[in-house]
Amino acid sequence: MVEAVETMDGWYSLHDFRTVDWTSWKLATEDERKEAIDSLQHLLVKWDKVEDGKDGSHALYNIVGQKADLMFMFLRPTTNELATIETELNKSKMGEFLIPAHSYVSIVELSKYRPYKEEHPEEIPEIAARLKPILPKWEHVCFYPMDRRRHGDENWYTLEKDVRGKLLYEHSMTGRKYAGKVSQIITGSIGLDDWEWGVTLFAHDPLQFKKIVYEMRFDEVSSKYGEFGEFFVGNHLPNEAIATYLEI
Amino acid sequence: MVEAVETMDGWYSLHDFRTVDWTSWKLATEDERKEAIDSLQHLLVKWDKVEDGKDGSHALYNIVGQKADLMFMFLRPTTNELATIETELNKSKMGEFLIPAHSYVSIVELSKYRPYKEEHPEEIPEIAARLKPILPKWEHVCFYPMDRRRHGDENWYTLEKDVRGKLLYEHSMTGRKYAGKVSQIITGSIGLDDWEWGVTLFAHDPLQFKKIVYEMRFDEVSSKYGEFGEFFVGNHLPNEAIATYLEI
Amino acid sequence: MVEAVETMDGWYSLHDFRTVDWTSWKLATEDERKEAIDSLQHLLVKWDKVEDGKDGSHALYNIVGQKADLMFMFLRPTTNELATIETELNKSKMGEFLIPAHSYVSIVELSKYRPYKEEHPEEIPEIAARLKPILPKWEHVCFYPMDRRRHGDENWYTLEKDVRGKLLYEHSMTGRKYAGKVSQIITGSIGLDDWEWGVTLFAHDPLQFKKIVYEMRFDEVSSKYGEFGEFFVGNHLPNEAIATYLEI
Amino acid sequence: MVEAVETMDGWYSLHDFRTVDWTSWKLATEDERKEAIDSLQHLLVKWDKVEDGKDGSHALYNIVGQKADLMFMFLRPTTNELATIETELNKSKMGEFLIPAHSYVSIVELSKYRPYKEEHPEEIPEIAARLKPILPKWEHVCFYPMDRRRHGDENWYTLEKDVRGKLLYEHSMTGRKYAGKVSQIITGSIGLDDWEWGVTLFAHDPLQFKKIVYEMRFDEVSSKYGEFGEFFVGNHLPNEAIATYLEI
Amino acid sequence: MVEAVETMDGWYSLHDFRTVDWTSWKLATEDERKEAIDSLQHLLVKWDKVEDGKDGSHALYNIVGQKADLMFMFLRPTTNELATIETELNKSKMGEFLIPAHSYVSIVELSKYRPYKEEHPEEIPEIAARLKPILPKWEHVCFYPMDRRRHGDENWYTLEKDVRGKLLYEHSMTGRKYAGKVSQIITGSIGLDDWEWGVTLFAHDPLQFKKIVYEMRFDEVSSKYGEFGEFFVGNHLPNEAIATYLEI
Repeated sequence: MVEAVETMDGWYSLHDFRTVDWTSWKLATEDERKEAIDSLQHLLVKWDKVEDGKDGSHALYNIVGQKADLMFMFLRPTTNELATIETELNKSKMGEFLIPAHSYVSIVELSKYRPYKEEHPEEIPEIAARLKPILPKWEHVCFYPMDRRRHGDENWYTLEKDVRGKLLYEHSMTGRKYAGKVSQIITGSIGLDDWEWGVTLFAHDPLQFKKIVYEMRFDEVSSKYGEFGEFFVGNHLPNEAIATYLEI
Repeated sequence: MVEAVETMDGWYSLHDFRTVDWTSWKLATEDERKEAIDSLQHLLVKWDKVEDGKDGSHALYNIVGQKADLMFMFLRPTTNELATIETELNKSKMGEFLIPAHSYVSIVELSKYRPYKEEHPEEIPEIAARLKPILPKWEHVCFYPMDRRRHGDENWYTLEKDVRGKLLYEHSMTGRKYAGKVSQIITGSIGLDDWEWGVTLFAHDPLQFKKIVYEMRFDEVSSKYGEFGEFFVGNHLPNEAIATYLEI
Repeated sequence: MVEAVETMDGWYSLHDFRTVDWTSWKLATEDERKEAIDSLQHLLVKWDKVEDGKDGSHALYNIVGQKADLMFMFLRPTTNELATIETELNKSKMGEFLIPAHSYVSIVELSKYRPYKEEHPEEIPEIAARLKPILPKWEHVCFYPMDRRRHGDENWYTLEKDVRGKLLYEHSMTGRKYAGKVSQIITGSIGLDDWEWGVTLFAHDPLQFKKIVYEMRFDEVSSKYGEFGEFFVGNHLPNEAIATYLEI
Repeated sequence: MVEAVETMDGWYSLHDFRTVDWTSWKLATEDERKEAIDSLQHLLVKWDKVEDGKDGSHALYNIVGQKADLMFMFLRPTTNELATIETELNKSKMGEFLIPAHSYVSIVELSKYRPYKEEHPEEIPEIAARLKPILPKWEHVCFYPMDRRRHGDENWYTLEKDVRGKLLYEHSMTGRKYAGKVSQIITGSIGLDDWEWGVTLFAHDPLQFKKIVYEMRFDEVSSKYGEFGEFFVGNHLPNEAIATYLEI
Repeated sequence: MVEAVETMDGWYSLHDFRTVDWTSWKLATEDERKEAIDSLQHLLVKWDKVEDGKDGSHALYNIVGQKADLMFMFLRPTTNELATIETELNKSKMGEFLIPAHSYVSIVELSKYRPYKEEHPEEIPEIAARLKPILPKWEHVCFYPMDRRRHGDENWYTLEKDVRGKLLYEHSMTGRKYAGKVSQIITGSIGLDDWEWGVTLFAHDPLQFKKIVYEMRFDEVSSKYGEFGEFFVGNHLPNEAIATYLEI
């Protein structure tokens, strides 16, 4: 039997995609729209405080194309907090104009393919910080879910642990070339959502999303063992730009 | 021809997923909302009595993410009782605000891969109790349907019975490590719904869902013969928390 | 080139799945609901007369789960009669509350894998009756569509006729064990709908659906050559129970 | 590199599937319904004139089952004419009650697998007529799209031209048995719609659709190289039957 | 490890598909319709100015069939500009009648399989122009997304660079035959949208779409390594034809 590899797990993650119901939004009165924007700002202020207290993190992006208009990404210590956030958004005045479009549930994950000297590597400050990351507010985001293939000779889960480790190491070397250009958060979702992992990339230049994903596709771990889902790309929407985004 | 394995079958199961129509809910008057919550509480009290009488069981969970808001899980001796429950929910005042999102029909199942000394193992008290289980009201739930693969060399249904038994035994050993952390109910759905089995996991800590499903994926029975459907994860919603959940 | 096998074909079949629009139903006045139920009873009486005259058959089932609320199954000598029934249902007052959910078009079929002494086996009374069956009003129904696989070495359509015949014969032996427990109608749908065959099973105990489909999955004809679609399971809804089912 | 085969191409084709919005239709006043039916009859008269002038052809069928209520099939020399027809139908009063259900864009096609003596075979009168066919107003229609498989050893596009020609010749011999029973129009849709070809069959008896498609499935060109999409079956709806079909 | 190939990337691209809500459009007053058409013309004038200034390009096509009514194609230097365009369209009066149907995000791409003498080939005027192309306003458009296959022996991403280059070169030779008949823009979408590339073809005669895609399917790069998505075909809709297209 093949040996699994332990993971270190951090904050739970919810990617929450919403489409603005522009027709209802325009039919609403100016007062209603103001009330709605205020309700969203109220939530954002609340979430900002959580982030200030290092009890979670979040970011808001304007998705390009018609898959959604907005992507909220939330990180919290528990799934209960994530469900509460979702319910609060649904109950808010703004929620009446935000049609659910898609969502993804996962948890920040680091794997232990590399042996650690420490008994509790998750307590190493640098690793602890990566497990409970404050989301970089970089200008662009890319999110996609993925699986490792399990078909005939191309079966990630029947490979020996050291082979998997080696392939992932090579893969990480490709990633390293993009240091400073792409910031990556891997979230595990086996047992939590439909794919096995979620990948969230942040960049100052969205072309870097294409460059890194393209180059990585030639890594054996992707070319032979990667299965990819939907890709979402968005532009950062800071709190102070929301009113303008929604202004009509 | 390959020999099938007999199953022991218990209560029928209905996983019933609903999305709250928050916009209608907010448009309703306070009286209507009260009437709706009362109608749901009325049903819950009725279902609780069934559970007290050991004539069935149920649980209600708040799903994380946008696949649904609520998952009701019902166990009953007959499919007629399940259909009646579903119709009662649809007819209730609360039903007007609960949009059907997904459902799954199955039956609690134990297989007889291991030979039993008893002629009627389903009458052994411990087994009888597992066939008609009172659902644990643990804090978190995970539900997913699955198939056994039937492609070329990876065909569960052309394996000899003892090979299948051996693979499932190894798999159960992985499960055993999670005793006390994960409680599992397997429901068979061949001939009843689109996948062959449903898996419902309960845990105090949702991270255990990821850990057990991840570790099990390396078991040969999963890595070579498992095909998995959608995953739903939720937080327990006890009766006394419903009003708060729906309060606006 | 591989030889096909002739079929004997009987009545055309329409499985018509509908979801009750419970919210509209509750918003309707009591008079409207009465008018709607009357319109459905009127159609049922008409269809019953057709069945009494042995010019067709039908049955109505309450589907378990959210795929649909109702499944009407109609058998008629022509597709024109099926289309007319569908249109009458759509035009009826009840039709305003029955949202189309799914449908399946096929024709009752018996294959001639076994050689018959008679030149026109379809005229043998027992066979003629199976081609134009009066649907048993058993308590439970199971419907699913299926294909025979055509991939690489697992290709039903490149097998010699006698191999196919042998595999189907073995399969029928499995089916024979369920005599009296499961009544089966096979309808062919190649050239008529998306799958190659429809299977409609009737039982007094829905557990028999699981038992027969599970056991048959180990028959080579299923394990290597069967591809299965959606499964629908329902409880019989006799005319006299409809008003109660719809009462609010 | 494998040699493609030239095609002869005729009129563009649009299969336009619509579902009647029966609830809106019943809510409309009698005057509105009359106006709507008149608007459709007006278009049909216009299209009939085009057909009389041999500048195109069309037919209207009542689809069996819930995939759609109506299938319009239009043939025209240009895609602009097809788009105009679609827009006219959308703008018509009847269009308000016809919900788009599906469509397929293709072009009448004959292949040149068989060598022709003539330099311009498309100018042979019999062939020219088949490229610009007046649709037979036979009682029943069957439409389905299809691909040729491209997987591993089963790859139509890596077969030599003469092998493809031989397989298609055998296939045509099967088709020839159905002369007078089934009339077939092949339309190419590579580069035009999601599948590679559309097949439209006309018959006096819909059982012939099942017989021909079933028998052909054993031809190597289908058993090894055919991938099939959705099947739609309908009954002819002549102009003079439309008012009755829509009467309530 | 296999070597990727660098790409030259130009303007970002958004294919934005919309369906006209004809029923709402007809229910609107003549003033509202005028306001809506004016709002669209206003945007078109604005976008034309951008194109005149060579800061982007766009085109509008009327899609044949029911996948959409309109396809806007936009090219811009940044994803922010694309998102802004989309939001402006949604906020416009016309946007109230244009239901989102589909979209695709990508970036104009040229690959460097062929070695260039220049160090910065993207600065060669002819190449620079192809990276920031003014869309030809040819009469017809065809858009489809595609992947390179990654399965077993048919894996584009495990082929050596020179093999890929050779296959693509042969492919380009097929394309060259269509010079003057088909104008092609390749946009890369790895990391940006669900498929790896988008292909947008322009032609004076839509039959050329079928001819080129059909002929290319026999190129090894397509027959063994191509996976294709949905195809959309449309007729050019110049600004001055919009009012007529929408007139009722």
